[in-house]
Amino acid sequence: MFKPTEKVDISALAPGIQHFLGQAAYSELGEFDSLARAVATAPNLAVKEGLSAAAGRALSKHHGLITEIRRRGHEPATEMAPFVAGLDEFRAKISGADWHELLLSCYLAGGLLDDFFIRLSDGLPRDIGPRVAQLLGEDSGTSVLVQELHSAIEDDQALRSRLAMWGRRLVGDTLLVARSAMPAADPASGRAGSNEARIEPVFTELIAAHTRRMDGLGLTA
Amino acid sequence: MFKPTEKVDISALAPGIQHFLGQAAYSELGEFDSLARAVATAPNLAVKEGLSAAAGRALSKHHGLITEIRRRGHEPATEMAPFVAGLDEFRAKISGADWHELLLSCYLAGGLLDDFFIRLSDGLPRDIGPRVAQLLGEDSGTSVLVQELHSAIEDDQALRSRLAMWGRRLVGDTLLVARSAMPAADPASGRAGSNEARIEPVFTELIAAHTRRMDGLGLTA
Repeated sequence: MFKPTEKVDISALAPGIQHFLGQAAYSELGEFDSLARAVATAPNLAVKEGLSAAAGRALSKHHGLITEIRRRGHEPATEMAPFVAGLDEFRAKISGADWHELLLSCYLAGGLLDDFFIRLSDGLPRDIGPRVAQLLGEDSGTSVLVQELHSAIEDDQALRSRLAMWGRRLVGDTLLVARSAMPAADPASGRAGSNEARIEPVFTELIAAHTRRMDGLGLTA
Repeated sequence: MFKPTEKVDISALAPGIQHFLGQAAYSELGEFDSLARAVATAPNLAVKEGLSAAAGRALSKHHGLITEIRRRGHEPATEMAPFVAGLDEFRAKISGADWHELLLSCYLAGGLLDDFFIRLSDGLPRDIGPRVAQLLGEDSGTSVLVQELHSAIEDDQALRSRLAMWGRRLVGDTLLVARSAMPAADPASGRAGSNEARIEPVFTELIAAHTRRMDGLGLTA
């Protein structure tokens, strides 16, 4: 019988290394792009400065993954290509109606996808999985986003409600992107049933971490 | 009598350290912002990838300057504030009508302003000038911009003419920004005359380097 408290063996769920690296690399480039837009439209210099550091972190994760792709003798552009349409559509969907929604998207989607790829990297070979996990686990510099959202929400009940709704909406889109990265999404694999059982607790973990981020902001998840 | 071939003593032209660091730091943030926009609108993944590296270089120069500001016990936002309006207006002016114009702006204005601040850093104290010069002199990763502009121009005479004109126009705006960073721009300094004589050869150097960049692209300067 399946016990959700057990450490889940994710190796069966992990996509191939190239698939993983291409998708994670383009995902970090998307996060960079979102943050760069938040930098460009920041309301003051101190925030602009903090956000630019966060954008730099996403970019350096992206370049770390690119280095791994090159190390294996592949072309980054070729490896990322299959994920462009889906991830661009995702980023457009979560870009938000204003600066605070964009900020929340950067924080929540960036956090969830980092968590997800770190979790997935568990299934990669030992010569690359831990290195990638460390890279993706590096501080994202998002404390400035938390601070900014926190103080904006504090005195504005209408904004708080709107952002709470936005957070709930974007977690759905983000989980769909994550879901599409896993092989069980392909019914032809013939292992769909057992993979679903393995995936569920991973998603439970991801949602729990998302809920903690929402709670930390004072937004009811 | 003044001889233009002599090494120009720029120390009298150098602004105060805080002025220098605040302005150079915000200038690099503007370069980053322009490059990030070029990343977002890049026509293909390989170029996007190369441009993202160039954006990362500008960002790391920016953060290096921020570190210098903090090391001296100052607040980066406070130090950059006086330059925001002027540099934002400049960046808006040189953002260009399309992706190729934006690319040319990043390459030419970024190159000229790096040259300029490196030149100006000569007049800073020994405990900071050389370190800043080294930081700003680091490879900007702009070879991808050159490559991209080169191949776009190669088969398109109309684009070549348009970009040649754009390059001539934006050098003027960029030199004005550089000019405003120098104390002789302030007639109240009482040294305007002698400073003008010192500034001229610096600008001659800057324009010569600009012309080399234009020539390298196959654009008549």
